[in-house]
Amino acid sequence: VARHTYLCPVRWFDLDAYQHVNNVQFLRFLEEARVDFLFTLAPREGAKTLNEGVVIARHEIDYKRPLHYRPEPVPVDIWVIEIKAASFTLAYEVHDGNVLYARASSVLVPYDFAAERPRRITADERGYLEDYIEPQ
Amino acid sequence: VARHTYLCPVRWFDLDAYQHVNNVQFLRFLEEARVDFLFTLAPREGAKTLNEGVVIARHEIDYKRPLHYRPEPVPVDIWVIEIKAASFTLAYEVHDGNVLYARASSVLVPYDFAAERPRRITADERGYLEDYIEPQ
Amino acid sequence: VARHTYLCPVRWFDLDAYQHVNNVQFLRFLEEARVDFLFTLAPREGAKTLNEGVVIARHEIDYKRPLHYRPEPVPVDIWVIEIKAASFTLAYEVHDGNVLYARASSVLVPYDFAAERPRRITADERGYLEDYIEPQ
Amino acid sequence: VARHTYLCPVRWFDLDAYQHVNNVQFLRFLEEARVDFLFTLAPREGAKTLNEGVVIARHEIDYKRPLHYRPEPVPVDIWVIEIKAASFTLAYEVHDGNVLYARASSVLVPYDFAAERPRRITADERGYLEDYIEPQ
Repeated sequence: VARHTYLCPVRWFDLDAYQHVNNVQFLRFLEEARVDFLFTLAPREGAKTLNEGVVIARHEIDYKRPLHYRPEPVPVDIWVIEIKAASFTLAYEVHDGNVLYARASSVLVPYDFAAERPRRITADERGYLEDYIEPQ
Repeated sequence: VARHTYLCPVRWFDLDAYQHVNNVQFLRFLEEARVDFLFTLAPREGAKTLNEGVVIARHEIDYKRPLHYRPEPVPVDIWVIEIKAASFTLAYEVHDGNVLYARASSVLVPYDFAAERPRRITADERGYLEDYIEPQ
Repeated sequence: VARHTYLCPVRWFDLDAYQHVNNVQFLRFLEEARVDFLFTLAPREGAKTLNEGVVIARHEIDYKRPLHYRPEPVPVDIWVIEIKAASFTLAYEVHDGNVLYARASSVLVPYDFAAERPRRITADERGYLEDYIEPQ
Repeated sequence: VARHTYLCPVRWFDLDAYQHVNNVQFLRFLEEARVDFLFTLAPREGAKTLNEGVVIARHEIDYKRPLHYRPEPVPVDIWVIEIKAASFTLAYEVHDGNVLYARASSVLVPYDFAAERPRRITADERGYLEDYIEPQ
């Protein structure tokens, strides 16, 4: 129904020698947004098992504008674009209201770390993820 | 004609709480391979200007297998897959001989940091990059 | 007169393979508290030049208890313990109310990056720092 | 009898916005030297248990000169300065032959992660550490 917005704190060391937020650190911001979405928010909304482990199968990211250091956090929108039997795809925008810094997506696979293998998405997980699908 | 192979040292802190090399740190490995390819190797082979600055326009990465901590470096192959007027695309494989950990590509834009704008690829740069195009 | 408290966000990747916040990341937290104290708060309170550059001469840190991942930030207290002609010493505590995780101190030297040399503390800087000296 | 020298690779992202190796990253270099000394070298020389876990109780570091980016690794000397019943102290120098960048020391405590408590140093561990005590 809606995107989730994570307010991602920027650290001074996210800057590289070019004095912009380093391109790889954007992926770190996405990780923080994902941890918030899957490990903190999901259990509160009934999906209690995503925080047992997911692995990343793929990332894509397009950089739109350089991001400078700022004491205030930068918003990262996160939402769901696809749910399959044993994987799902998240999309993200790192932005500042009407300024877009980066747009990205990640394919994630729920993973059973004890058995060391991927597992199917549960009904509770599907219910949670469906609430964050953005109609295209 | 040939891929360049960068032997990327793995740090213990590249591991995350799952005790695998963290997915974002793979992008850090690609950065190190790119720095070696564009800032160290290129000037020796006649392309002296790439180290004045390039910005990343896009990354794609597919994770194939988890990578564990190891004292020895992990090979990262890097090569060129496309050269346009003002951008070029690098491909990478993080591997261990016959075990592939990740495959990735990046679109890069030569950037004039003084003028704060992208610039065209020079003839010297094109000559260098063409030596590392892998025939498909 | 008073300590300044910076609420430091913890990132999931601050954890290492032992699933605690990595010891080196505590120094990263101190850096964030310092950036807040010297680059954000100081100019608001009349010391407009500290954000032009300071270099670190020394750190000491004692670790008291392991810190686990948490979505909420961890408080870092920061205050001044000594002011000399061309250096000053900050102290810090990373804590959670009555639980102390680490106690640390840093010697800092204002630095003129254009001239590439250390410089003396100005009267405005001294005035600011004196407001954060804790009587011993 | 002798210091151990770890050749520590420098990453481009170890630089911060001041274009020097960031002060916190020096602690990361010490960590890599320590991992090499305790987890890789020690088992080869008969101390097979240090890699089961040690925790850091304290660090001290003095910064002597700025370190710039370099493709070649920077030497980190590591040696032992004190061995007690349940802790030991390592010293380090990050240098380049006759140029000293930083000098540091760390107090370490062997830790039983299963029992979640510190443990005493074993005879094998003591034998290994004694080989790296530098006579003062």
